Amino acid sequence: MMNRVELCFSPADFHLYEKNFELIVVIDVLRATSAICAALEHGVGRILPVATVEEAKAYQAQGFFAAAERNGMVVEGFELGNSPLGYLERAAALQGQTVVMTTTNGTKAIHLARNKQTVVIGSLLNLEALCQWLIAQRRDVLLLGSGWKDKFNLEDTICGGAIADRLITSGWFRAEEDSTVAGKFIYRSARDNMFAFLRASSHRRRLRKLNLNADVKYCLTPNQLTTIPVLREGFLVKLPAHEQGEVATGDAAQIQKRAPR
Amino acid sequence: MMNRVELCFSPADFHLYEKNFELIVVIDVLRATSAICAALEHGVGRILPVATVEEAKAYQAQGFFAAAERNGMVVEGFELGNSPLGYLERAAALQGQTVVMTTTNGTKAIHLARNKQTVVIGSLLNLEALCQWLIAQRRDVLLLGSGWKDKFNLEDTICGGAIADRLITSGWFRAEEDSTVAGKFIYRSARDNMFAFLRASSHRRRLRKLNLNADVKYCLTPNQLTTIPVLREGFLVKLPAHEQGEVATGDAAQIQKRAPR
Repeated sequence: MMNRVELCFSPADFHLYEKNFELIVVIDVLRATSAICAALEHGVGRILPVATVEEAKAYQAQGFFAAAERNGMVVEGFELGNSPLGYLERAAALQGQTVVMTTTNGTKAIHLARNKQTVVIGSLLNLEALCQWLIAQRRDVLLLGSGWKDKFNLEDTICGGAIADRLITSGWFRAEEDSTVAGKFIYRSARDNMFAFLRASSHRRRLRKLNLNADVKYCLTPNQLTTIPVLREGFLVKLPAHEQGEVATGDAAQIQKRAPR
Repeated sequence: MMNRVELCFSPADFHLYEKNFELIVVIDVLRATSAICAALEHGVGRILPVATVEEAKAYQAQGFFAAAERNGMVVEGFELGNSPLGYLERAAALQGQTVVMTTTNGTKAIHLARNKQTVVIGSLLNLEALCQWLIAQRRDVLLLGSGWKDKFNLEDTICGGAIADRLITSGWFRAEEDSTVAGKFIYRSARDNMFAFLRASSHRRRLRKLNLNADVKYCLTPNQLTTIPVLREGFLVKLPAHEQGEVATGDAAQIQKRAPR
């Protein structure tokens, strides 16, 4: 029995695709879901995604460490936004801590999916570990790109296409939607030179202006992490080792790292 | 001064893209806009696009020739849907006539765009003639794919990508949106073997089941027509020769026909 894997380009289209899917992978490559994977792998205890800056401020006032990004920039009054390298720099201070996070696109997509049975976080950073776990689940999978303010974006489509391609190639999944076919196709064309391919992307241009090339390079280098963030009672936590299974952890050493050129 | 050309994948996204665009190209390759181009080129006087089957029936009761398609099939009580070859077969009877038309996706997209200053109809059939006219306009252009029930589809994206590519290559246009970059990219990969590329597409599968391969082959063979349908007071009519200009008509003989393999 084959399972389905489909790609929904942006939160605006979620209602058209979500029916019959109870396992959702939320993707925001530049940079929210990359930051979530990096933070949880490097010791952050849990992450509370919130939709608005106001909520983040309220938690901050209660003493939580809060992070907020809008339009690629850290919001005034916060010391961190959605920079994965920013979390790595603060790893020692954040060990075991709860981080409250709001971002332009990623936390909105998580919010939209939150009533489904299972919500996990995807990025290029945890690509192979996530795919191995998804294949082991034997469930239908909907990949949800965060887009840019409800519009299609290239980098989430490439990541979603990479996951779809891996799952279909496993022989356990099939795709029906044109969006999934297109995503798979764009990924296959982009994979050997992701940096050059994304040169034309609107968000790369946005981030280049903000001088965030180190962050971008980190986010576009696949398979640096094995953490699978999962939503549990409103918090994103690292999927426990006994749930992740032996496949992913056992193969961790063999995971191929491909640096962007 | 460069103009912008952007691609909006489906009617559901129109509100995200339409701002500042007053020239819209509506695309429904399989098959509404292909049928509109074919019908007007072969002598139909004008086409009234209506949103619902009920409206089409009301006009039919008044004696108009009405056509209605839903889910790829002719609606019961009508003798024609959105088959371009169906219009060609009836060309003699329909000379100079008004045709009322409702389709699953295409007429909905036209309806959505109808308050803009200029709405024209695009397809692969009139690709080069349309592009030459668009280049001569010196205006910003929004390409609107009709999708499939608000979802992304491959064939409209390829056609939109072809138009964007041609306009950008002319040197007079630039694109900013990731959707336009993706469309251009998918077109360039698909152009030499459109039939094979679309084998995986959901709508091709849908139409194959309905035994419509002759129609599909016709719709996917570029540059068979030079008509540019334009919306005037609610009716789609052939753009008059003096408005189409010498560029398109003068070059008609050189237009390259490329048959799908």
